Amino acid sequence: MSPGRLFGVGVGPGDPELMTLKAVRAIAEADVVAWFAKAGNPSNALATARAHVRPGTIEVPLLYPVTTELARTDPAYFALIEEFFDRSAATVASHLDGGKTVAVLSEGDPLFYGSYMHVHVRLASHYRTDVIPGVTSLSGCWSAAGLPLAQGDDVLTVVAGTLPESELSRRFRESDALAVIKVGRNLDKIRRALVSAGRLDRAVYVSRGTMADSRVVALKDKPDDQAPYFAVVLVPGWEARK
Amino acid sequence: MSPGRLFGVGVGPGDPELMTLKAVRAIAEADVVAWFAKAGNPSNALATARAHVRPGTIEVPLLYPVTTELARTDPAYFALIEEFFDRSAATVASHLDGGKTVAVLSEGDPLFYGSYMHVHVRLASHYRTDVIPGVTSLSGCWSAAGLPLAQGDDVLTVVAGTLPESELSRRFRESDALAVIKVGRNLDKIRRALVSAGRLDRAVYVSRGTMADSRVVALKDKPDDQAPYFAVVLVPGWEARK
Repeated sequence: MSPGRLFGVGVGPGDPELMTLKAVRAIAEADVVAWFAKAGNPSNALATARAHVRPGTIEVPLLYPVTTELARTDPAYFALIEEFFDRSAATVASHLDGGKTVAVLSEGDPLFYGSYMHVHVRLASHYRTDVIPGVTSLSGCWSAAGLPLAQGDDVLTVVAGTLPESELSRRFRESDALAVIKVGRNLDKIRRALVSAGRLDRAVYVSRGTMADSRVVALKDKPDDQAPYFAVVLVPGWEARK
Repeated sequence: MSPGRLFGVGVGPGDPELMTLKAVRAIAEADVVAWFAKAGNPSNALATARAHVRPGTIEVPLLYPVTTELARTDPAYFALIEEFFDRSAATVASHLDGGKTVAVLSEGDPLFYGSYMHVHVRLASHYRTDVIPGVTSLSGCWSAAGLPLAQGDDVLTVVAGTLPESELSRRFRESDALAVIKVGRNLDKIRRALVSAGRLDRAVYVSRGTMADSRVVALKDKPDDQAPYFAVVLVPGWEARK
């Protein structure tokens, strides 16, 4: 095995104070810090971690190819994105082969819907690898909302708003607590599915959960269906049964 | 409103380095630190946070009444435990009314299956309250296992092993990624439900996720059904579809 060492580092939901002590240490000790971002966009993960990156650290952005013109279900999209993840892993591996310690930053928690996973599955069996868990953006959102999400024997389902309306509606009906991710342009559909499942009343909309400009509002009181991609809709399980 | 200030503080899954900077600061600045524990048992949350509690801080254990002789479905249990939570909230409130800043420690994340929630719902509308999210014990477990849990449009279900076998089996069948909590004496039932749902092959058993003596094993290779209460069973969604 190469002497290089890989860290998947969760930096939490955005507030730099919600980084763990372990993440701070791993970033400060790394020879190389890498992160995924869209070309032309600033990296949220890097912005969160910035104060702890030592001067002289090698910085490696892993920039997603521009793929907005391809549908996600398109085989061409899949090929392009797999090639990108292969190339990103090879870039990280080249530093590991040189004996470097590489910290791959991940918003939230690295193994919970994070881009880091694509590096992990390609490299973790070949290099000494540690994953440092982080506070998920979901925890950031329900904490900002002060919303007790799940308790006791509650079944909690995390579901993407990109799914078809009928499936959303079924999931909403069959779970005690709900966290809907990838809201964005799907908010009107999510709202209809909550209505048909009889769950709209307690649904809470949260955008930019741990940012200074966070917004928390009962979904039934939100007058429009405009939402950023990373907004979430939460439905508490527990309180509803009291 | 009283000048007192309430903090629900997530201390993460057990490794003191997995506390956030914000949790460390809140604990160090608190006048009063409170935590839930079973009488006679050491508090994991306090042990995790101990290094950051200033000398002179008022320490307030909130000790669960001994209730092992009552079934959880027994109305007498329910009455006893509600009375205990009322009393605990009143204890915390007495410090808040005295103008103190009170940090209630919570293992993992305060609003995710945490005892702190019982204080929160009783006091958050009466006192200035902030919840500091933490790394969940689930994140600690799948990170220790290096197991990419959910990605893309995966549906993730968190379910308690205490549920009936038929319900477990149905949930296991209908979700991409699974996290089973409250394993303990339910492991034989969980195993049977995974078999009947066709999901045993990829199930991973993790006990004491972020402790020095953590154990990670493919469930199908675990020769017995002995498990501590806080063990978890994880089934990754994403990789299964590749």
